[in-house]
Amino acid sequence: MQRILNRPDDVVDEMLKGFLKVHKNIVEATANPRVVKARNIPAGKTGVVTGGGSGHKPAFIGYVGKNICDVAAVGEICSSPTAAAFLDAFRTADQGKGVACLYGNYSGDNMNVRMAVKMAGNEGIDVKTVVANDDVASAPKEKRDKRRGVAGEVLMWKIGGAKAAKGADLNEVTAAAQKAIDNTRSVGIGLTPCTLPAVGHPNFKIEEGTMEVGIGHHGEPGIEVCKLESAAKMAKRMTDIVLPDLPFARGDEVAVLVSGLGATPVMELYVLYDEIDRLLADKGIRVYKSYVGDYFTSLDMMGATLTVMRLDSELKELLDMPVECMGMTQL
Amino acid sequence: MQRILNRPDDVVDEMLKGFLKVHKNIVEATANPRVVKARNIPAGKTGVVTGGGSGHKPAFIGYVGKNICDVAAVGEICSSPTAAAFLDAFRTADQGKGVACLYGNYSGDNMNVRMAVKMAGNEGIDVKTVVANDDVASAPKEKRDKRRGVAGEVLMWKIGGAKAAKGADLNEVTAAAQKAIDNTRSVGIGLTPCTLPAVGHPNFKIEEGTMEVGIGHHGEPGIEVCKLESAAKMAKRMTDIVLPDLPFARGDEVAVLVSGLGATPVMELYVLYDEIDRLLADKGIRVYKSYVGDYFTSLDMMGATLTVMRLDSELKELLDMPVECMGMTQL
Repeated sequence: MQRILNRPDDVVDEMLKGFLKVHKNIVEATANPRVVKARNIPAGKTGVVTGGGSGHKPAFIGYVGKNICDVAAVGEICSSPTAAAFLDAFRTADQGKGVACLYGNYSGDNMNVRMAVKMAGNEGIDVKTVVANDDVASAPKEKRDKRRGVAGEVLMWKIGGAKAAKGADLNEVTAAAQKAIDNTRSVGIGLTPCTLPAVGHPNFKIEEGTMEVGIGHHGEPGIEVCKLESAAKMAKRMTDIVLPDLPFARGDEVAVLVSGLGATPVMELYVLYDEIDRLLADKGIRVYKSYVGDYFTSLDMMGATLTVMRLDSELKELLDMPVECMGMTQL
Repeated sequence: MQRILNRPDDVVDEMLKGFLKVHKNIVEATANPRVVKARNIPAGKTGVVTGGGSGHKPAFIGYVGKNICDVAAVGEICSSPTAAAFLDAFRTADQGKGVACLYGNYSGDNMNVRMAVKMAGNEGIDVKTVVANDDVASAPKEKRDKRRGVAGEVLMWKIGGAKAAKGADLNEVTAAAQKAIDNTRSVGIGLTPCTLPAVGHPNFKIEEGTMEVGIGHHGEPGIEVCKLESAAKMAKRMTDIVLPDLPFARGDEVAVLVSGLGATPVMELYVLYDEIDRLLADKGIRVYKSYVGDYFTSLDMMGATLTVMRLDSELKELLDMPVECMGMTQL
């Protein structure tokens, strides 16, 4: 394992220390070492919380900042934050107007969020949740509630966070976030496995010369292992999975997010984006805004995800709101 | 080779197409397909040009934008842009106040820039160059003109670009950029080799369990191959090489840039930064600003570079100027 680490078990603590130093103008620590908050949360706003396992940088703490999430609960590598961390995140974010918890559909996160919401309720903190389930490959359309959340979460946070920053109440914030994720579909293709620092070797395999379509962010099995294809064919395969599912149709305006999985050179993501953009144009789908880079990763996995969100005037306005967070503003 | 490509020979063309689409608010194409310019270059300013081989994303086109470089010449993978591309870049950037060409010390780039500067002179375009040579490991201190330019170039572009944006003339811009690079030192550690798309396999080796200290961005040999170390020891080794060279001293204020080489998870760069920050504090060196992420990469190489720049009030002011480019502002 060719990695930059001290004790693998300390990686989350140590990463957080570095992160908080580098981005001290945007984020700050809280009494709970597994809860990170935005500096200068505007008074009286509806709180916005997210949280999830580590190893997906910039997710999740990279989306804490101005006009996006206020607080994030931080889990160990590829495992959910504890219920106690989510509860402290809710307490930190609540200003009497309640808290929108916007997170991804994984069993550990679901369980811990549910417990934390209940405990928060006992303290008089009103928490409503929106669960991202944008990964088309993880369950059939009629079982959308079984689907995982992947890079579509970034757009959900952007929309929900912007709505809250505009002064919306809790119901309005969760409605906007729910609308964002309801209009969002994603799929990933994995080219290499990833290695958890504490394990030291990949815990699943992708054979050289093959690729896994629909792979999850933790190596969850995809829908097909096939021969490694050209960027053009990968783009075709991804859009063929994503577009019919909503379905996206001629005349739609969309946001497109192409995220690397951690170890794929960003140059190649632009090659993939160019193919996707052309396929969308051929179908009469107009790209209003595009994002290409490492937005939601899986340690050192190679590959990419495609996320498409259908827009209306409200979503466009919220997407356009300036934002300040490590994941969307490097400097 | 597990990569997202069509024909490997087309990767630069295709990457550029995707890049220009995604960042159309910041950059635009020119008549020369190997020259990218900032959109809306303010009238009457001193031009700022850079250029270099591809495969180092965000460098070089990622540093074209507002308050940084105006134009970049684009080379093939790991090879210099042509003299014709540099010349067209100079023509595009010149507004009668001359052009500062800020680039890295590689033989191909030196040769092509020199030819282009001469040709531009024949057309009445005044071009002055600043050559980055921040890589301490690439030659001894007394032969600083033999050293390569690495991630310190990012800070040179930031400073030179900000100076030009403030209305400085050509001599003032090159003086600021020269001052930036004279006060900047870098070193890299490689953990895995990289694979050029057209070759399909690594063209050098780093054995599992070892690391190469002082490696160049194209796999140029470093100063030592040793056992893979902990992040703490890597940080110690990097600061022990970088700090005595200027030398940086107690009481100095510095900017620190830790860049991944392409395939190292960003999480680990924060772990490394945390160690570096502590070592600097122990020596009484104050970090004024820090940058952690993939700022100057080598395709899919694993590893990181450390860059330290000593600051004075002028450099701090120029560093603080807002900037808009893909490499420093993702959105």
